[in-house]
Amino acid sequence: MATKEEYTIKSRIWIRTKNGAFLGFGRVALLKKIDEYGSISKAAADMKMSYKKAWELVNSMNSQHSSPLVIRKIGGKGGGGSVLSAAGKNAIKVFEDLAQKNDDFLNDRMKEIQFDDE
Amino acid sequence: MATKEEYTIKSRIWIRTKNGAFLGFGRVALLKKIDEYGSISKAAADMKMSYKKAWELVNSMNSQHSSPLVIRKIGGKGGGGSVLSAAGKNAIKVFEDLAQKNDDFLNDRMKEIQFDDE
Repeated sequence: MATKEEYTIKSRIWIRTKNGAFLGFGRVALLKKIDEYGSISKAAADMKMSYKKAWELVNSMNSQHSSPLVIRKIGGKGGGGSVLSAAGKNAIKVFEDLAQKNDDFLNDRMKEIQFDDE
Repeated sequence: MATKEEYTIKSRIWIRTKNGAFLGFGRVALLKKIDEYGSISKAAADMKMSYKKAWELVNSMNSQHSSPLVIRKIGGKGGGGSVLSAAGKNAIKVFEDLAQKNDDFLNDRMKEIQFDDE
C-alpha cells in the first residue's frame, strides 16, 4: 500500500492595472523597507536591488495610483529621504490582508482535496 | 482630481509535499501535453522543454503520489509512449478547479478593496 503524501499549497498574487504590475510581493517588500529606512537608496541596498530598479518600481507604483504611495522629501540637512504616504501604508495593509485571506482560502480548499482517491 | 485606476488581480498556485514542488501551472501544462500526444518527448518538444527536464518533472510528480501520474508504455511498434493514469487525469482536474476557485475568490475580494480611499 502506498502511503499518502501530505500536500500543502503556496500562492503568489499580483495586482495590476491596464498599465502593468502595480503591487506584488517584491513591491510591497520594497514599500516596507522604505517605510523602515525613510530612504529609497537604503531600502534598495537592503534588498540587494539597484537604486535605479527601486526608483523604477516606486515610479511605477506612484503612477498607477491617484496619489503617490512614496513621497520624496526634498532638502533638509540629511538631503531629504522618502516616506510612505497614507496611501502607501494602506497599500501594504490591503495587499498583505489579501494575501493572508488567499492563503486561508487555499488551505481550507486543500483539506477537501483528494489526489490519492483512485 | 485623480481618476481611479481599475485594479485586477492575478495569482499562481503551487502544490507541494515535504519533498518539494508537486504540481504547478508548468507541471500541469506538461501533463496535459503528455495526454494530448501520448508521448513525453513530443510533449516536451511542444513546450520547448528538454526531454531531460520533462522526465525530471514527470519523475518528481510520480514519486510524490501514491501511484504514478504518468505511465510509460514499453515496447509496441511505435516504441511505447506515455499515458496519463486516472490519477494523472485527476491531478489536472483538481489543480485547474482549485486555480479557478482561487481566481473567483480573489476577483470577489478585489471588488471590496479600496486603494484610493485616502
